[in-house]
Amino acid sequence: MLINGEPGQTIPVSDRGFHYGDGVFETIRVINKQLSFWPLHQRRLANACTLLAITLDLVALQGDLDKLLTQSPANGIVKIIITRGSGGRGYAPGLSSATTRIVQFHELPPANNGPTADGIRVKFCQQPLSVNSTLSGLKYLGRLDLVLASMELDDGFDEGIMTTDSGQVIEGTRSNLFAVIDGELVTPNLRNAGVAGVMREYLMERFASTGNPVQELDLEREDLSNASEMFLCNSVFGVWPVVELVSQNQILKLEIGSITGLALEFQDEEFRLY
Amino acid sequence: MLINGEPGQTIPVSDRGFHYGDGVFETIRVINKQLSFWPLHQRRLANACTLLAITLDLVALQGDLDKLLTQSPANGIVKIIITRGSGGRGYAPGLSSATTRIVQFHELPPANNGPTADGIRVKFCQQPLSVNSTLSGLKYLGRLDLVLASMELDDGFDEGIMTTDSGQVIEGTRSNLFAVIDGELVTPNLRNAGVAGVMREYLMERFASTGNPVQELDLEREDLSNASEMFLCNSVFGVWPVVELVSQNQILKLEIGSITGLALEFQDEEFRLY
Repeated sequence: MLINGEPGQTIPVSDRGFHYGDGVFETIRVINKQLSFWPLHQRRLANACTLLAITLDLVALQGDLDKLLTQSPANGIVKIIITRGSGGRGYAPGLSSATTRIVQFHELPPANNGPTADGIRVKFCQQPLSVNSTLSGLKYLGRLDLVLASMELDDGFDEGIMTTDSGQVIEGTRSNLFAVIDGELVTPNLRNAGVAGVMREYLMERFASTGNPVQELDLEREDLSNASEMFLCNSVFGVWPVVELVSQNQILKLEIGSITGLALEFQDEEFRLY
Repeated sequence: MLINGEPGQTIPVSDRGFHYGDGVFETIRVINKQLSFWPLHQRRLANACTLLAITLDLVALQGDLDKLLTQSPANGIVKIIITRGSGGRGYAPGLSSATTRIVQFHELPPANNGPTADGIRVKFCQQPLSVNSTLSGLKYLGRLDLVLASMELDDGFDEGIMTTDSGQVIEGTRSNLFAVIDGELVTPNLRNAGVAGVMREYLMERFASTGNPVQELDLEREDLSNASEMFLCNSVFGVWPVVELVSQNQILKLEIGSITGLALEFQDEEFRLY
């Protein structure tokens, strides 16, 4: 781990990332010493920092990443955390906060060697996802709703699907969601909630470029009960076909169909590049 | 500052409070070496930890606070931060996370010697407040919406009033809101968003016990334009009468009326105890 370019394991308690979740992060799969989807991750990170008025030194960050990758195994995960640093009076930031820049290497979790091929079981989480139109899309540090949702998954479910208090389906706890409904490939719109995932963006571009445009829609739970295919994705584990969706009233069994197959091919095309 | 009972200034980067906002905090006014409203703060903190399944050792915390107050000036602010500690796999906590317990002493900010007597100017913030029915009421670490709202207040406004994306008025950036509308004392309900402030709770109890029950209502911006009195409060600065509310279309001038006067008396009654 490097903190502002230097080896370290601790941060000042005063860091605003700790006090207020005042920062953002990226989680990136490392394949053969290379950061997969790096241009997309970098763009999302830079855009988020601009929106939050956090100064991001991309050259210094690139230096940190080069150094970290040199010292790390060939395959795994890199997490980048950027915070507004220390300072300010309460919620209001000071004028002179110096950004905190952290890069960390992790082993791949076992899930990545796991259930992909045969598909996964998912359920709807009770815990609602937070709604905020200016924070939606961002991968900011305040993730308590996702933490609580994850705590519901200890009974044989690989992922949980999250909805807002008003019943809109948005995403998985650590993934974005796609479904085939009435023959159309759709994904929830993220206007009000959710993380705009890098794999989601990549898949939408690939599907569009091959004549299968993805519709971004307002979706409710009932809509998913009409799905013929469903898959979740993120940039670390790739694409997870869903073969069983459990809700209060029913268990929906799904096949791994041709559209999901295409998503898996797109995933492989990218992961094979490295 | 004490971290798990020992002097310190840093926490491990791995702390879940830093990664995910997985924790809660309290900010308490210290008067003559005593923690004002301590029973209410302690109850809110304990309830939040129960809800989040974070283990809280209240005896150890009390020991930390006693030690901190002995070493600190007679008057100021104590901040308590409790997190789930380190561990787990991504959002999902580990089974063995050890709670992180931090107590810090701060000077009182200048605002506490400031605008109270003559009243304050407030405006509506553009930044919406996050909506989440299970997190509402809690003072959890993820406060990015409030940080961004605070950044709008650099032009002569002492506080900003926050609304949800659907237009519900909830609170100030660091305060709760009361208003007198059509002769009734009201405060926004916090079912879906907002912090259930200790001063708010205290004032509601005091008003009720003196024959002036407070109505918790769904309020929209337009409702506030009919207010005859308005005040903000939190447990550190007490009660701030509002004398000017600026919205896009109008400036509402307000008097410091008899109900606000009563709130100021209730505040003084408590603060004088110490």
